[in-house]
Formats: sequence, structure tokens, C-alpha cells
Amino acid sequence: MGGDHAPASVLRGAEMALIRHPGIRFILYGNRYILEPLLQDIPQLKAASRIEHTEVVIAGDDKPSLAVRRGRQSSMWLAIESVKDGKACAIVSAGNTGALMAMSKLILRTLPGISRPAIAALFPTLRGESVMLDLGANVEASPQDLYRFAIMGSAFARAVLGLNRPSIGLLNVGSEELKGRDEVKEANQLLKNTNVDINYHGFVEGNDIAAGVVDVVVTDGFTGNVALKTAEGTARLIRTYLKDAFNASPISKTGAFLATGAMKVVKDKLDDRKRNGAMFLGLNGIAVKSHGGADAFSFCHAISVAVELVTHHINSRITEEITGTDTQPMPNYSAELAQVIEGEVD
Amino acid sequence: MGGDHAPASVLRGAEMALIRHPGIRFILYGNRYILEPLLQDIPQLKAASRIEHTEVVIAGDDKPSLAVRRGRQSSMWLAIESVKDGKACAIVSAGNTGALMAMSKLILRTLPGISRPAIAALFPTLRGESVMLDLGANVEASPQDLYRFAIMGSAFARAVLGLNRPSIGLLNVGSEELKGRDEVKEANQLLKNTNVDINYHGFVEGNDIAAGVVDVVVTDGFTGNVALKTAEGTARLIRTYLKDAFNASPISKTGAFLATGAMKVVKDKLDDRKRNGAMFLGLNGIAVKSHGGADAFSFCHAISVAVELVTHHINSRITEEITGTDTQPMPNYSAELAQVIEGEVD
Repeated sequence: MGGDHAPASVLRGAEMALIRHPGIRFILYGNRYILEPLLQDIPQLKAASRIEHTEVVIAGDDKPSLAVRRGRQSSMWLAIESVKDGKACAIVSAGNTGALMAMSKLILRTLPGISRPAIAALFPTLRGESVMLDLGANVEASPQDLYRFAIMGSAFARAVLGLNRPSIGLLNVGSEELKGRDEVKEANQLLKNTNVDINYHGFVEGNDIAAGVVDVVVTDGFTGNVALKTAEGTARLIRTYLKDAFNASPISKTGAFLATGAMKVVKDKLDDRKRNGAMFLGLNGIAVKSHGGADAFSFCHAISVAVELVTHHINSRITEEITGTDTQPMPNYSAELAQVIEGEVD
Repeated sequence: MGGDHAPASVLRGAEMALIRHPGIRFILYGNRYILEPLLQDIPQLKAASRIEHTEVVIAGDDKPSLAVRRGRQSSMWLAIESVKDGKACAIVSAGNTGALMAMSKLILRTLPGISRPAIAALFPTLRGESVMLDLGANVEASPQDLYRFAIMGSAFARAVLGLNRPSIGLLNVGSEELKGRDEVKEANQLLKNTNVDINYHGFVEGNDIAAGVVDVVVTDGFTGNVALKTAEGTARLIRTYLKDAFNASPISKTGAFLATGAMKVVKDKLDDRKRNGAMFLGLNGIAVKSHGGADAFSFCHAISVAVELVTHHINSRITEEITGTDTQPMPNYSAELAQVIEGEVD
């Protein structure tokens, strides 16, 4: 029920995902009186889905702490719980990011050895696509956090980008060992000396992200969020410059018309919808966040991300590498409730 | 003598700057046996300059700590000293950034009330240009540092952008008061409650930089450096996408040909050379850093930045606002030497 165009774009996205991945089945958490009429027009999806009815919806501007306390019957809460209970393999939501993160942490808990989950997503680069994390789950990260983000990001890149040994870079302000923040320098040492099999490249700088110097860019959630949004803002700036310049004269308009195909190629490459679907990495269950403004095509991609992560057993991989085992203890989440409400949630 | 194309591009840049600002005079620190033959071809510049001879040059890859210890006779050191001694109003250099910063801190010292200088420079935005600082002088910043960066950035924007009451934004991961790092939240309180006359807007996010939501974006040097380089990398990515797409077919090539004028407009707007010249704000003297790869046009712009800052008495303005007075005590820099060499220099 979450997101700017929900539930219609969510259902249409699920319909598209069903064509891509015919084996999947959906549990739709939400208001049956809204969902059922919409499903009438999408018989294939109707056949592959069942509705779990609830009328409680977390709003986009609800505070995460409040959502966690009062939203126990919400579509978001129940959907996350279905993952914990083993009824679903993954949850995908276009709803309130903070609430989704808070509830997911509380219900799913973190994987053994992980204290902080991280948000990971894809970036366009000169070489194709790269993974970046954390994009905002934690405004700070210790050297150990950054080290674990690197391992989690590596597993994510293998699952979603299909790479064998993705290269990992640590975002810094220079490539020399002496530069940067202490936690970044310490994480560099941890990554250089680890016996976990990861392909650690070393430091990368801001301009290396889009250059695709590495497959996985590791940073704290503050820096990652700023970098992601700065890149988006820069792309929008250039798009506006181009549009204005093309419209400035009849000749340039003609030129732009002839170059329509070329511009479409560029637009496609920069199309964020193809990269929709950020994972909350490090949780004991797969939770994928779609952009709130997602249309059907975009939401379909978020579902595909979830499918890839399930297929590739991402959490078993992370756990194996972090702890050397793949045991996943069942969480006792209610004990943690007070702590989360007290302020663990960003 | 510093920079990839020095000293030829430096001299040609000075020649261009002399046309823009006929009143300026230059002291050229460097090797007279190299400079004099070049000046033969630039008689106007020769007439407006004198050479202070030295054969010692700081290399681009010299460590700042070493440069500070061993570079006392270097062109960089002597040029900075000329500002301290009142022989020059400002120094402009395309040399080693770390060495220039370390030497400038040591020789010029910081302004009263300022503990950390910051690097400020201009960004292109949808509304024109904005200032961003810190771009890398400090990998961390306390709430008080961020507060002072805001005041310094405001003075810089008035001098360089000619604005009366530039608006100031604090870079964060969300616009709500509860979001972000503690130091950013505290700086927000300081800026909201200050009685200094600045036009404080509140939090901005990464995408607001290029949108031009505020005239001055304030952040720590780690985040600022990553944001600056991420924007550069994104612009390069899109440029490459466009070039490849335009070259893909005869029709798009024709389109690109007709749109040459439009593309030139966009290229001009994104041309970093027009924004060359980053100031080390907060030092007791004006030190402007040109990009190392600057050509003559670009270096000329860095000189123009220095001229604007001198003309607008930037340091008196900053001091007035920080301390309520405009006294500028003469620094006793030798006492600080040991400390700087021990590790104050980033």
C-alpha cells in the first residue's frame, strides 16, 4: 500500500515481474476492497497471488518510532513478519523508508556478526553498473562496520550483478594510505589483512564511482547518501542544460530531433528505474525498498532484485563469510523493542 | 612554478588577468632563467611584474610535511611569505595542494577565532553558481567549525558572487531536524540561534547542490570532497554517454553536428575552468589554489578570484563577523612549526 502510485503501480509491477519470473507467487498485504477490484483486470497476477487483508497503512510521513509502536496491524508490519515466519522469501515495499528500516530491524533482526544493516543499491558507471553502500541506514560507521559492509556488498554484487569476484573500493578523499578519516584508514587495514576471500582494491575517490573503477563502493550512510543525491542532482542539471540549449534555436532543435535516438540511448542508460530496488543488507531476511515514486516498470525491477537475492541465498553467503558458518538463529525480536523505540532507529 | 603546464600557462594566465584587471602587479617567484625568456614574448606582463629568483620547486607529489621542512627557499614558500610580509595582497598557485595548505597555515596562520581553515570553491547550479566548503582541508568538522565555515562561506559568496545576503545551507541526509549526524544537528542549532547577520536556510541534501537551492553549501571536508568529485565523475559519465550515442549512427552524427552550438553552450556552462580558483578560507592572508592542470584561461580565473577577494576585504569581513572586531594580529608562526610538522597537517 506504500508509495506515490500504490497500489496500482505495485500490482502492475508485480504483473510484469511475473512475466520475467513465472515461478514467483505473491502475498499482497493491504486493503482487499481496494486490491480485489484492481486484480480483476490482471487475471494472471490474481492467480499467482493471495491477499492478506488489513486496513492499516503506514503513511509516507509517519515517524519510524511511531510507526513501529502503532503500526502492528499495518500492511508493512505484516508483510515483514511474513518473511520472519517463513511464509514469504522476501518483502518488497515502496513505502516509508525509515519505517520500513525500523520495522525490518525489529522484526527480522540482524544476521549473526552484523550490528548495523546497510542500504545497498546500483549506480550507472562507464563500465556498466556498480553497487554502493551504505546509502543512508547509518549516519556513521565504525571501521568494523565498513569492513562488514564490504563483505555484504561483495555478496550483493555477486547476486545482483552476477560477478564472480567483484572488486571492492573504500570511499576516501585521496588514494594515499595516509589520507582520510581514521575509521576509513582502519577499515582499509582490516580489509587488506582479512582472510575472507574478497577482491579488495583499496581507496577510491568520488570521481571513481561513475568511472566504475570498482564493482562495490563502500562508505558510511551519510557520505553515501550525499554522493548518491549529488550524482542525481548533477544528472538533472545536465539534462536541464541540454534541454534548454536544444530549444534555443531552430537549428539546434532540428539537431536534437535527428539525435532523438541517441538521446534515448543516453536517457535509457541513466534511467534510475532500471536500478530500482535497494536492499537492507545485513538483516536476517530479505527486505527490498523500492523508490516511493516508482511506476510499474520500476517496481518490477525492485521485485527482480528480491528474486535475485533469494535465488543466490545472499544471507547464507554473508553469514558464511562473516562467521564461517551459515547458522541463522531465530530472532527474539520483542526483547529489542524498547531499545529500538528509545533511539536505535535513525 | 607549480602545476602541470607551469610556468608557461601561469604566465599566459597572468597576461590575460592583466587585461581584465589592469591595475594588478605580479611578483613571480621562480627560476629567472626559465621565466625571463618566456616574458620576452609578453611585454605587457613583463612591465607589470618582477621576478624573485629561486631554483627550489615543490613537486606535485612531495609530502606536505617534508615540503614544509625542506622547502623554505621554494617558490611556494617565498610567495606565501610575501603575503605575510605585506609585499603581496594574495598568492595564487597551481602547485601541490597539500603543501600549499600546510605552508599557508604555518606562515599565514588562521584568523582570530578560526581554528580550521576551509577550502571553498564554486559549483554550477540550475540558478547560476553556488559556493561549497569545505572541499577537503579537514576530514572532520565540529559543530563550531561548521558554524564558522557558514560565516566564511557567506563572506566568500558576497565577494565572489556579488550577492548581498547569500543563503546558507547545511549539507545533511534529510531536511527534518531529527535527521543526520550529531555535529550537523548541533551546527544547525548554532546557525539558527546566531546573532551574526547571515541568511541561514537550514538543511540541504546532495541533490540540492546542483539545484542551487542555496548560495552556500556548508559541510565537512570529507563529505565536500566526495560530493565535488562525485559531481565531476557524473558529468564525465554523461559526456561519454552522449559522445558514444552521437557517434553511433550517421543520423545522430548529423543531429550532433546541427546541435554543435547547443552542445557548446552546455559545455561552456559545465566548464570548470570558469570556476577555477579555490580559496583557503580562514587564513590570515589570501591564498588561492588553482587546479594543477589549469591552462592559461583557467589560471586567469584563479587570479580573478584573488582580485575579488582582495577588493572585497574578505578577511576583514570574516574577522568582523567572527569576533566583532576587525583587528588582525600579526602571527608568530615559527612557534607553531613543530606542531604542524607533528601532524596538524592533513
